[in-house]
Amino acid sequence: MDQNEIIRTAHALADAARGAVLPFFRSMGLTADDKRPDGTFDPVTEADRAVERAMRGVLAVRRPQDGILGEEFGQKAGSSGLTWVLDPIDGTRAFLAGAPTWGVLIAVSDRAGPIYGLIDQPYIGERFEGGFGRARVLGPMGEHVLAVRGDRALDQAILSTTFPEVGSPSEGAAFAEVARKVKFARYGLDCYAYSLLAAGQIDLVIEAGLAAYDIQAPIAVIEAAGGIVTDWQGGPVHLGGRVVAAAGRQQHEAALEILSRAG
Amino acid sequence: MDQNEIIRTAHALADAARGAVLPFFRSMGLTADDKRPDGTFDPVTEADRAVERAMRGVLAVRRPQDGILGEEFGQKAGSSGLTWVLDPIDGTRAFLAGAPTWGVLIAVSDRAGPIYGLIDQPYIGERFEGGFGRARVLGPMGEHVLAVRGDRALDQAILSTTFPEVGSPSEGAAFAEVARKVKFARYGLDCYAYSLLAAGQIDLVIEAGLAAYDIQAPIAVIEAAGGIVTDWQGGPVHLGGRVVAAAGRQQHEAALEILSRAG
Repeated sequence: MDQNEIIRTAHALADAARGAVLPFFRSMGLTADDKRPDGTFDPVTEADRAVERAMRGVLAVRRPQDGILGEEFGQKAGSSGLTWVLDPIDGTRAFLAGAPTWGVLIAVSDRAGPIYGLIDQPYIGERFEGGFGRARVLGPMGEHVLAVRGDRALDQAILSTTFPEVGSPSEGAAFAEVARKVKFARYGLDCYAYSLLAAGQIDLVIEAGLAAYDIQAPIAVIEAAGGIVTDWQGGPVHLGGRVVAAAGRQQHEAALEILSRAG
Repeated sequence: MDQNEIIRTAHALADAARGAVLPFFRSMGLTADDKRPDGTFDPVTEADRAVERAMRGVLAVRRPQDGILGEEFGQKAGSSGLTWVLDPIDGTRAFLAGAPTWGVLIAVSDRAGPIYGLIDQPYIGERFEGGFGRARVLGPMGEHVLAVRGDRALDQAILSTTFPEVGSPSEGAAFAEVARKVKFARYGLDCYAYSLLAAGQIDLVIEAGLAAYDIQAPIAVIEAAGGIVTDWQGGPVHLGGRVVAAAGRQQHEAALEILSRAG
C-alpha cells in the first residue's frame, strides 16, 4: 500500500470538493429536498451531490481499484481491500444556514476500520488530517500538530453535540445527564466538533444516529491525535450509531459510565 | 460628524482587535476567571482584556472626544455625543472551545442608539459592517452586499439562538414554542448568527439577557441590511434585554405574537 499516494489522493479529493462546494455556499436559491418519506426534514442539496460527484470523478482516475461508500450515491465495490468513505457535506443544515461548521469528510478504510481521515472546512480554509503517522491541521494560522488535551475530570470538561435533543428521548436523557456534570456544553458544531477535539480544544463529543460516513474520518483524525472514539458501550463505532469521542481516558470512562445505561 | 473618519476608525479598531486576539485563540493555558460571585460560569480571559485594551488605545489617539462603553473596562464619558460600544470577544465560551463563531463587536451610537456597527471574525477573516449607507461583508469569498432574505412564513424560517435553554424557564418556553413552528433551529452561533441574518442566510435570532454591548453592533448591521431588531414586545432593544432579530416583517410578527406573551 502506497501511503503517500493515498494521502495525495485524499488531498486531491478535498481540493476537488472545495472547488465544487464553494460556489453553492451562501448562494441564493439553494434547494433542499426532503429525503425522508416520513416528512422529517433532511436537506439534500445540489451541493451535496455535486461534491460527491467531483470526488468520485477523481477516484475513478486515480484509484479505480478501491471501493467507495458515499452518502449520496451509495456503495461501489473495489478489488484492493480499501474503501473511500465520503460525506460530501457533513452538516447540511449548517450549510443551508450559512454557518461555517459543516465539513467534507474523507476516510480510507480497510476491513478493520478507518486508517486515514481528513476533515476539510473549505470556507475557513482549514484541513484536519490523521493517519499514517500524520496528525495535523492546515488553516488560517498555518500548520499545527493535532494533539488532544488528555485526561481531565468531567467537571472540567467541555462537551459538544450538534442537536440539543441528541437522538431518542432516552439517548437525550443520557446526554443531558453528562451535560449537567461538565464545565459547559456547546451545540451546533457538526463535524467541526471532532476537529476541535483532535486540536486539543474540547474534551467530549457525544452524538447518536450517525452513519459510517459521518464518523470514519473523525475516528482517524482523533485517534491520530491521541484521542478515543467508541460507541456508548465502549466498543468500535466505525459502522455508525451512538458515538462518544474523548480527549482522554478519564473523560471517556466518566461519560461511558452514564451513557452505557441509556435504553 | 465625519462619517468616513468614523468608518476608518472602526476598521482600525477591528484590525487592532484582530492582532491582539489571534495569539490567544486556540492557545494552551488560556485561563478563564469566573466573574460571578454566585459561581455560575462566566469566562473572562486575558484575551478579552487584551482586545478591549487595544481598542481603547486606538480610540484614545483617534477619537479622544468620544465616549466608550466596553464589556471589560466599563464606561468612559465623552464630549462629542458619540459613544463607542465595544464587546472585545462576544462568545467567550465559543472562544474557549476553539469554535470560530465568536466575534469582536464594535458599534458607534448617539443618544437614539447605534448608527454604525461592525462584527469581525478574525480567525475566518470575515468582517460584516452596516451603517452610513454601507451594508457589506468582506471575507474569504471577497466582498458582498448584505441583504436580508425578506418576508417568509414561520414554517419556512431558519431560527438561531446560542444556548438551547435561552434564558429563564419562561423565556425558554417561549423560545421553544417558536422553535417548534420553524423549519429548523441552529444553536451555538453567538454573534455570528446576527451576521448570518444580515447576510440573507437565516430568518430569526432570539436571545435573552443581552447587554447593550452584545446587541448594538448587530442592530446596526442588520438594520443596514434591511432587517428588524426589537425586544420581545416590539420595542427598542439597544440597551439590551430580550432580543428578536428578523429577516422580514412576517417572521418578526409571527415570533412576537408568541414571545410577547412570555412572563
